[in-house]
Amino acid sequence: MKYLKTYTPFALECGSVLPELEIAYTVYGTLNRQRDNVVWIAHALTANADPAEWWDSMVGPGKLFDPRRYFIVCANMLGSCYGATHPGSIQPHNGRPYGRDWPLITVRDMVRSHQILQRELGIRRIHLGVGGSMGGQQILEWAVHDPELFEKIALIATNARHSPWGIAFNESQRMALRADSSLWSDQPDAGRAGLEAARAMALLSYRNYPTYDRVQHDPDEKLEGFRATTYQQYQGLKLSRRFTAQSYWSLTKSMDSHNVGRGRGGAEKALALVKAETLVIGIQSDILFPIEEQIFLAEHIPGARLELIDSPYGHDGFLIEGDQLRKKVGEFLGQSAGQGAGKPEALRA
Amino acid sequence: MKYLKTYTPFALECGSVLPELEIAYTVYGTLNRQRDNVVWIAHALTANADPAEWWDSMVGPGKLFDPRRYFIVCANMLGSCYGATHPGSIQPHNGRPYGRDWPLITVRDMVRSHQILQRELGIRRIHLGVGGSMGGQQILEWAVHDPELFEKIALIATNARHSPWGIAFNESQRMALRADSSLWSDQPDAGRAGLEAARAMALLSYRNYPTYDRVQHDPDEKLEGFRATTYQQYQGLKLSRRFTAQSYWSLTKSMDSHNVGRGRGGAEKALALVKAETLVIGIQSDILFPIEEQIFLAEHIPGARLELIDSPYGHDGFLIEGDQLRKKVGEFLGQSAGQGAGKPEALRA
Repeated sequence: MKYLKTYTPFALECGSVLPELEIAYTVYGTLNRQRDNVVWIAHALTANADPAEWWDSMVGPGKLFDPRRYFIVCANMLGSCYGATHPGSIQPHNGRPYGRDWPLITVRDMVRSHQILQRELGIRRIHLGVGGSMGGQQILEWAVHDPELFEKIALIATNARHSPWGIAFNESQRMALRADSSLWSDQPDAGRAGLEAARAMALLSYRNYPTYDRVQHDPDEKLEGFRATTYQQYQGLKLSRRFTAQSYWSLTKSMDSHNVGRGRGGAEKALALVKAETLVIGIQSDILFPIEEQIFLAEHIPGARLELIDSPYGHDGFLIEGDQLRKKVGEFLGQSAGQGAGKPEALRA
Repeated sequence: MKYLKTYTPFALECGSVLPELEIAYTVYGTLNRQRDNVVWIAHALTANADPAEWWDSMVGPGKLFDPRRYFIVCANMLGSCYGATHPGSIQPHNGRPYGRDWPLITVRDMVRSHQILQRELGIRRIHLGVGGSMGGQQILEWAVHDPELFEKIALIATNARHSPWGIAFNESQRMALRADSSLWSDQPDAGRAGLEAARAMALLSYRNYPTYDRVQHDPDEKLEGFRATTYQQYQGLKLSRRFTAQSYWSLTKSMDSHNVGRGRGGAEKALALVKAETLVIGIQSDILFPIEEQIFLAEHIPGARLELIDSPYGHDGFLIEGDQLRKKVGEFLGQSAGQGAGKPEALRA
């Protein structure tokens, strides 16, 4: 993991200013002489800047995103506790954590912070920008904001603006965070119980009825202590061991703010600005980012191609369905499923 | 509202004993001489024993359940703070509220407590038992437990056993309740913030993406304070003003316990015991009790008839879709949509 640190005040969309920025990032491979082999991967809500860790079906030697071929970059989002400036970071003027004073970070702010890293790394063109869910929101926002940057973008299980349904899920989770009165304390486990409840709720939006039905059944004689209860608790605990409640708060607010149409005359007009060759992938069983959202993207991004994948896992399919994603993104990149380069142009309808 | 009070120890399925019971109930109309005009309505999670209040499209003079024709009974569930013995009730041996000592109440316990009221009211036969969601769970459990009692039952948006998905929703809500450290205090607003988060979460399971999409949109320029956020907060507040967190805890545990197959060789065998003429109604857009659950009921209850209704409201349709429910339950009761009696037998496939 590498760190970019800047001491130039960074003005946020909400009007606040961060006096300094830190952004953790990972690079794999080498920028070639033509500087045309960059793959920029944007991570989702609680992931980190190392895609080989959370997307190992896609990233690594011999895989679709092979560091022997591509210069792969992934950077942590502002607000995340995985190495970006976040609510637990120390404020330079008083030596105390931001805590409650942490400002609203929009997806647009995240993109602008990543532009600093892009320039720092000498990247003028990105061969492929790719992300799922909130990662896709960032790549899309970036492709609207700087239409000349990306040759191609692949947007997976994402949307043009976050939906009222998605915002309601996030707000319900923040209500759980707030119900934990330790949320804004400066202890390391601040808001832990609230975070566990929030994660348990979020998990339901990432899955669906059949996902639970297949694996969480109990013997008929039980009265309580069902598998589904311990599963929810376990998933909450797993997150609270590795993530902070304050970062979770910040990132869900950021997700809510996502709207490519803001200040651009609406989502349709904003999407029309995209010049990158675009692949949009939706997951049929996704209840959080339903395929109507990807259909909307594909209808309004010029020349975009839409692919739907079948998955029992709902929204989580974007992390789990490595085989299907490899195939579809591989075709889009001009790699045949087996080996060698294909003809991406021929694959576009 | 009337109250039944018993001082006979009431043994629960979990092995605990409640030393006394209180059950609030409402009756409308008069038990006729033949005692064959009883309609027993079972209410759902946070409703009360007055169906004219929460199901006013169905109950009242000139409506489907007309007190001039029927003797209508509705009783509060054990654990509910609307007049049944519940976690805030005073324990006779020490004069203090149950609080944390409140035992697990199963749906079967609720039914057995309502049998006491049934006997008290001199009811030997029920013309129609009807309920939606957790109300349907009680009616079904009762019809399995005492197959001779009901002439007809109408089960709306309910299931034979609560699903892992439903249990996971309830547990996530209980995690939000637990995140509020005041949950088990004996203050009147104990666990209020947790309850609000839990309700916000529950609401999502009662609705769906399109319900929010239609009414919760904002202008493009907003960064935060979205309508969907204030809506979730408002819905939480509305419940916390009228309900207690401890009752909510108890009732969701009860819902999880629902399984007609327990001790009866499984759900299929239990459903085969039902002798009542049965109408099962499912709501196409219900994500919490999906129609597969009602199809299962109709397949395994002898001679049951299945009806699916279209509603944009998801699970909440069982409270909202008065017109469709009146029509379907009315036909089942042998009332034509307009006036007079029809032939219920002719309406069964």
